Amino acid sequence: MTVETTGTNFQVRLAARPEGLPKDSDFQFTEEAIPRPGEGEVLVRNTFLSLDPAMRGWMREGRSYVPPIGIGEVMRGSTVGEVVESRVPDFAPGDTVAGLLGWQRYAVAAAKDLHRLPPGVPPLLALGPLGMTGMTAYFGLLDVGAAKPGETVLVSGAGGAVGSMVGQIARIHGCRAVGIAGTDDKCRWITGELGFDAAINYKTTPDLYEELRHTCPKGVDVFFDNVGGEILNTALRHLAMHARVVICGAISQYNATEPPKGPGNYLALLVQRARMEGFLVFDYRDRFAEAQAAIGRWLAEGKIHHREDVVDGLENAPRGLLRLFDGSNTGKLVVRI
Amino acid sequence: MTVETTGTNFQVRLAARPEGLPKDSDFQFTEEAIPRPGEGEVLVRNTFLSLDPAMRGWMREGRSYVPPIGIGEVMRGSTVGEVVESRVPDFAPGDTVAGLLGWQRYAVAAAKDLHRLPPGVPPLLALGPLGMTGMTAYFGLLDVGAAKPGETVLVSGAGGAVGSMVGQIARIHGCRAVGIAGTDDKCRWITGELGFDAAINYKTTPDLYEELRHTCPKGVDVFFDNVGGEILNTALRHLAMHARVVICGAISQYNATEPPKGPGNYLALLVQRARMEGFLVFDYRDRFAEAQAAIGRWLAEGKIHHREDVVDGLENAPRGLLRLFDGSNTGKLVVRI
Repeated sequence: MTVETTGTNFQVRLAARPEGLPKDSDFQFTEEAIPRPGEGEVLVRNTFLSLDPAMRGWMREGRSYVPPIGIGEVMRGSTVGEVVESRVPDFAPGDTVAGLLGWQRYAVAAAKDLHRLPPGVPPLLALGPLGMTGMTAYFGLLDVGAAKPGETVLVSGAGGAVGSMVGQIARIHGCRAVGIAGTDDKCRWITGELGFDAAINYKTTPDLYEELRHTCPKGVDVFFDNVGGEILNTALRHLAMHARVVICGAISQYNATEPPKGPGNYLALLVQRARMEGFLVFDYRDRFAEAQAAIGRWLAEGKIHHREDVVDGLENAPRGLLRLFDGSNTGKLVVRI
Repeated sequence: MTVETTGTNFQVRLAARPEGLPKDSDFQFTEEAIPRPGEGEVLVRNTFLSLDPAMRGWMREGRSYVPPIGIGEVMRGSTVGEVVESRVPDFAPGDTVAGLLGWQRYAVAAAKDLHRLPPGVPPLLALGPLGMTGMTAYFGLLDVGAAKPGETVLVSGAGGAVGSMVGQIARIHGCRAVGIAGTDDKCRWITGELGFDAAINYKTTPDLYEELRHTCPKGVDVFFDNVGGEILNTALRHLAMHARVVICGAISQYNATEPPKGPGNYLALLVQRARMEGFLVFDYRDRFAEAQAAIGRWLAEGKIHHREDVVDGLENAPRGLLRLFDGSNTGKLVVRI
């Protein structure tokens, strides 16, 4: 395997469409000359890459909300980095920027596809609470889920980047926050440092439904689901009247080689006059500033805590991605490039 | 089997909880003295009983939006009838009334549980377009489904009482209406007399998904689902962006002895930023007058057509109920008492 060298660009490309969990041979490492920016473009050296469950979907062929990553193409991904060379007036060398610049050390981007970080904002925050992670939690919970003070918010994947934000925003918003996670460490983290009202380790509980009845005695008003599968199906049995089920993802299904099992208890939506709704954070682009202002304030006030799970080196990104699926990741998973 | 006699009340009671399709031995016929109304009550002789898919759910044990019918209790059901004796000022003998008076010839009811039909309204309309059937179609389509002119409305169970109303209201509202039904006769009826834009016989089509692509070229904006199962799952694959899936029922699942299969394609809700929502018509009680005024006007203008499927005699109601599940019912199924 080649490793990156100063003076060349190092890239991770999709070599094959994975079946089940992605394996080394589904990726390809390439080394190229560093690209030069054209008129209106900026050359960025990426410093951190975000690893997200959605990437597994982008590797799959077929209809979705974005085209799949093509075979041979650089893997898609959000990054933060530093401007090296600029051919636009808006950006200057040394600026810290965020963008969808992919699994690579250097990238050329149009100015409109870059977002400058305000001075003093640590770059990693732009991939976490102030980036897509935070935006997803904020709009998913407050807009799609329409969480109201006094309600019970249940979130699956609660030890993950989005889930851990959802519970904290729910608490700030005056809701009861209950998290479902897969290790005792994650459960301790979310009820301890993050202040969730309760946590359930779905891998060790003998009866998730009974645990939901116990931790959510008035039923679940908002279920923010990152996981799908049996967790979704069981949560449907404990919805409160007029509940909202926010479909953010279904990480339990992303590597499935069988067609996904649907939530057999979906008729609970009828009995409870409830709704299940999917969303994509990109649709809220015009309102990101609102969420960033709120989350920035909560961070400054010490009301939001975050944790990063850092993988070192782009060449370790493919293996790092698996941390999202094997339960070992807590907090925001990123690659230091 | 006893048959009803003048001077006694004839009733159909739940004898056992059915497994799968209800059978004769799940019902019990009883004959009793005609009850006397107390102060504030009214004695009604029922003339028509509505048979509805929801009844199958009421026969089942377990949590739902209403308590199950108890073993030995008179079967629950909507009726129209004539006031025989009244001990309240609001009702007089000869008045035509509607209520939830059950599978029986006579019933005593409190005045607040009865609804007087305006003079000139044929009693059967109070069980169909102007009754729960019409209310369900109206609020499910326009309120829960939020159908807008120019959109494509797909409805399953389109040859049934609610489904046939949904498509007609959709057309009046300026939508394209496509129905899914299980016989060519039903398909001809809904595209002919009822004016649906297209119909699909799901039992004979070799590929429902292809048929949906063909009949709904711009995707499905509102899917009003009465059926569930594979029809729901396939329709999810063809949702338009921001689509609404209205869960009115799941007749394909009501007699299942296995746990219901969920819609495996539910992640289409995420990809299409769509929602799936259940509702119960009773929640719209305060707005029934609005819907009745609109539907009454459309009936008078000849824009709404309806058909009744009449079973003769209460003693035939148990077998009649099966017409809802074996595909033989078209339009509104009622029992003439």
